[in-house]
Amino acid sequence: MDSFDLRLPALRAAYREGRATPRELIRALRTRAAALNTDYRLFIHLLNDDEIEPYLAALDARDIDSLPLYGVPFAIKDNIDLAGVPTTAACPAFAYTPERSATLVAQLIALGAVPIGKTNLDQFATGLNGTRSPYGKCRNSVLADYPSGGSSAGSSLAVALGVASFALGTDTAGSGRVPAALNNLVGTKGTKGLLSTAGVVPACRTLDCVTYFTVTASEASTLLALTAAHDPADAYSRANPQWNDAAAFGKVERFRFGVPRQLEFAGCDESPALFANARAALEAIGGEAVEIDFAPFIEAARLLYEGPWVAERYSVAGALMEAQPDAVLPVIRDVLAKAPGATAVDAFRAQYRLQALKQRCDAVLADLDCVLTPSIPRAVTLAELERDPVGANSLLGHYTNFMNLLDYAAVATPGGFMRNGLPWGVTLFGRAFTDQYLLSVADALHRKLAVPLAGGARQDTDAPARPARDDRMKLVVCGAHLAGLPLNGQLTARGARLVEATSSAPRYRLHALAGGPVQRPGMTRDEANGAAIAVEVWSLPSAEAGSFLANIPAPLALGKVELADGRWETGFVCEAHALEDAIDITRYGGWRAWLERAV
Amino acid sequence: MDSFDLRLPALRAAYREGRATPRELIRALRTRAAALNTDYRLFIHLLNDDEIEPYLAALDARDIDSLPLYGVPFAIKDNIDLAGVPTTAACPAFAYTPERSATLVAQLIALGAVPIGKTNLDQFATGLNGTRSPYGKCRNSVLADYPSGGSSAGSSLAVALGVASFALGTDTAGSGRVPAALNNLVGTKGTKGLLSTAGVVPACRTLDCVTYFTVTASEASTLLALTAAHDPADAYSRANPQWNDAAAFGKVERFRFGVPRQLEFAGCDESPALFANARAALEAIGGEAVEIDFAPFIEAARLLYEGPWVAERYSVAGALMEAQPDAVLPVIRDVLAKAPGATAVDAFRAQYRLQALKQRCDAVLADLDCVLTPSIPRAVTLAELERDPVGANSLLGHYTNFMNLLDYAAVATPGGFMRNGLPWGVTLFGRAFTDQYLLSVADALHRKLAVPLAGGARQDTDAPARPARDDRMKLVVCGAHLAGLPLNGQLTARGARLVEATSSAPRYRLHALAGGPVQRPGMTRDEANGAAIAVEVWSLPSAEAGSFLANIPAPLALGKVELADGRWETGFVCEAHALEDAIDITRYGGWRAWLERAV
Repeated sequence: MDSFDLRLPALRAAYREGRATPRELIRALRTRAAALNTDYRLFIHLLNDDEIEPYLAALDARDIDSLPLYGVPFAIKDNIDLAGVPTTAACPAFAYTPERSATLVAQLIALGAVPIGKTNLDQFATGLNGTRSPYGKCRNSVLADYPSGGSSAGSSLAVALGVASFALGTDTAGSGRVPAALNNLVGTKGTKGLLSTAGVVPACRTLDCVTYFTVTASEASTLLALTAAHDPADAYSRANPQWNDAAAFGKVERFRFGVPRQLEFAGCDESPALFANARAALEAIGGEAVEIDFAPFIEAARLLYEGPWVAERYSVAGALMEAQPDAVLPVIRDVLAKAPGATAVDAFRAQYRLQALKQRCDAVLADLDCVLTPSIPRAVTLAELERDPVGANSLLGHYTNFMNLLDYAAVATPGGFMRNGLPWGVTLFGRAFTDQYLLSVADALHRKLAVPLAGGARQDTDAPARPARDDRMKLVVCGAHLAGLPLNGQLTARGARLVEATSSAPRYRLHALAGGPVQRPGMTRDEANGAAIAVEVWSLPSAEAGSFLANIPAPLALGKVELADGRWETGFVCEAHALEDAIDITRYGGWRAWLERAV
Repeated sequence: MDSFDLRLPALRAAYREGRATPRELIRALRTRAAALNTDYRLFIHLLNDDEIEPYLAALDARDIDSLPLYGVPFAIKDNIDLAGVPTTAACPAFAYTPERSATLVAQLIALGAVPIGKTNLDQFATGLNGTRSPYGKCRNSVLADYPSGGSSAGSSLAVALGVASFALGTDTAGSGRVPAALNNLVGTKGTKGLLSTAGVVPACRTLDCVTYFTVTASEASTLLALTAAHDPADAYSRANPQWNDAAAFGKVERFRFGVPRQLEFAGCDESPALFANARAALEAIGGEAVEIDFAPFIEAARLLYEGPWVAERYSVAGALMEAQPDAVLPVIRDVLAKAPGATAVDAFRAQYRLQALKQRCDAVLADLDCVLTPSIPRAVTLAELERDPVGANSLLGHYTNFMNLLDYAAVATPGGFMRNGLPWGVTLFGRAFTDQYLLSVADALHRKLAVPLAGGARQDTDAPARPARDDRMKLVVCGAHLAGLPLNGQLTARGARLVEATSSAPRYRLHALAGGPVQRPGMTRDEANGAAIAVEVWSLPSAEAGSFLANIPAPLALGKVELADGRWETGFVCEAHALEDAIDITRYGGWRAWLERAV
């Protein structure tokens, strides 16, 4: 079983071809997990035969075709409820046994996935290193002198060590991304509210996200598409706009990515070159790097532990801490100790500050498709954490703490290895609800860097074919909407920007339609007698396209236009019935040329 | 000047026709305002000749055509900055003289409007009645025994008493709506962040809105369209989606409006009939009333003063109150007194509670175009306020306190008169960014009720002709997207709902296009040989239309389709080039009929 490929497509193929059954596989994985637990302390509770049987039995009655996650083993961070098994949040005195699974766990089980155990974590998910647990310290999956990273420590190890196809983490300050970086995994911290947090022990309820650890980005894309759904049981749940659905994952083409002008590597002499390598790889796959001011992001990050948000953590664990101080680890007590002194006035003032910073950060992101950063400034050793449990931990959050405060989506993805063999990673982040797009970029980067995968498997060679999508869409215009012409304001008022001036494939005819006062062109496809027509491609926020469309009068319509290079993009076409009274102006090669000659 | 019509279109006509000049008009209005101030205490500071001259001089050099608000007199609540004139927030010890005007004030002046004075208010905008001011109590514009309502007391009186075309108020708990109701005005509390609050003394910064008082809804629509713009100086500023632009104001047709199942009139025996009358008027103009559970709205309302949001008010006035207790009115001190005791934990817990309530309220609103409520349960007299300054004030906020907490837009609009002559009003509210739609409904209701206007002018008879728009759009489908057919899920996944099954105008031909696997129809307009084709009209969130459009392959497109009753709606059309290989199925009358016969 050692080399068994647990990635979703490989596992599904193995089941289909009869090379494995869920029952055999899970038994083997549990044996392996139990053995690993001695050294790695990754599980707080590994499910026993009786506990796991109902999930396997449910599969017996079902066809693999009816269950997208048929027999897929997954691990659950022990601050997320699995029915009938204790939830500890790594604090035995806090433990309770839920009757119901968390919404997301129930969703996954209904899709055919099989829970194998509850994983170790920094107590109350407060930490980024994986050593703050009475259930033992989680060491790194590759190098024994380093921590796993946390707080979703055991979940990252379960995937990195090959005992689960994927694992659930949580992420408030970076808990789903730091361990991904340190264990050669993809850690997907989606948009807040996209995955339900009902049945999750809160850290900061206004900020918490559930995350996926996977070996590849495409697996995370599949999982996210299957489980992102509004949950009435979670007050912070949000509906996923359909530009961010499964179809949004794809091949990235030309894009613009931000890179911090201020990079922090905390003295690491290897990370700058690794980061430069990742940046170059992004450029090689079509990205244009744009240096950005990172100061407001870092200032927002500081609010998380220096500001009143610790009061949210206190509202979860404070009562226990006051009643039984020894039940809570000293380092966690120290974090929470500031909370009771914070006033509501402090809380609101910090929110004002955050809002002001968010305006600045949003303005930076407005013109970008994503931002690339290291996932951590540098790794810290177990010895260093022992010496300086707070400082070494804080260092790990430099590039992660601001993310949820600012409401961004992020994907931590493998970026290579240090000379000592320790995994090293980068993070791609962007606007809320661009999760599938970020995963597309992560996927392309991962392939381009050709980083060996956790578990030793090789990356699939078949990259996605259809283009990736984010929260903007392309729009091909050929007439009064061209830059500087009378209707162009309908685009700019919606935040559209010009991407390129190009021409259509040589298969169109252009007409000047009757009517006015603003004269309009009609572009129609003609395979036999067409010509190339000058057009502009604009990028428009997807949410604004509906009101743009509503304003378009017959006979014009938005369909698909073939460009000179063979791409098809959404753009203006014209119904045929209106051409009787129109003038054929194809010979001018474009609307501007016609306007100029007509004067 | 007594009967001079200050409404925007009338005033513009008067200037154009030479019946008035800004200088003459403003002089006359100031004389009138000074006289009124003795009884009504509406102005804290009326601009003198020197102060007003620069604004008039700026107009001298300009053409009326270049300034949409040329010479329009407006009043400014005295918690909003006007450069060079003190801002008091009705607290002399708090006063300061700003160098710059608030962003919104500067926008209005740049558009040609002329500020005439700073108006009285409940101190620190904390109150809903207009009597909590050291600058005197604002009595009602119609009945001397009643208050103006507040906190935007003087601003409402300036418009109701005919000394300004419009006035700026602010609204955190209802301060822009309660005085509108009591003085026969339209009070527009737009979506949070739509109008800049930079240069406004905060009440609760996370909730504050600037509002417009106008005589009619169409004037508010004009003002909102001219001034809703993202302001980088306001951290809470938000961009206005373009479905909510000037063109969204129009004629309302079939719509669904909520009415609270639990109506509170606080013992008033006249209000139930007045409310029933307003409801019937909405039904008469095409509205379908839907009774809704109002409990979560009322529960959210309670959070405003019983919860930690008073800490926001304290963070503005607290320091002054601690240093000089007598500088702050006792009733305001009592409101703020709770704040220092509230902890950050309290603040976050209240936010969790609000978020849970918002999910419930949003679910109620999801299926409605707007909600109709009384603006206040009943009016209170000055004597009653004297006896019970807190209780009588709180009563006024019953239908208003929840609005900003829940992030809804609202318009208070005249609804009739009590037997004693006191104005009585209703409020229309809805989802964020449906401001222009709400104003459209308010406009239609105002006309239908034929309420005499403040100042005695008559409502214009020419109602808007084009249809009003909200944050949803109509979509005509004729093939695989019909209910139950293979692609219908693309609509339902986007929150679309079926509005009607109807047919096109008898001017279309229907084709079954080549290709598949999902077979698709092509509908083309044919004036001469067309037929009526069975279609469905769906309603789709405008923000989701872009991703729907992106999925549509050539030769299909979204254009405009004429329906049987002559309406043109956005819907599927087809490019002509693809018809060569298609089968003409017009004779079946629709896609379903063809599918059934083809089997």
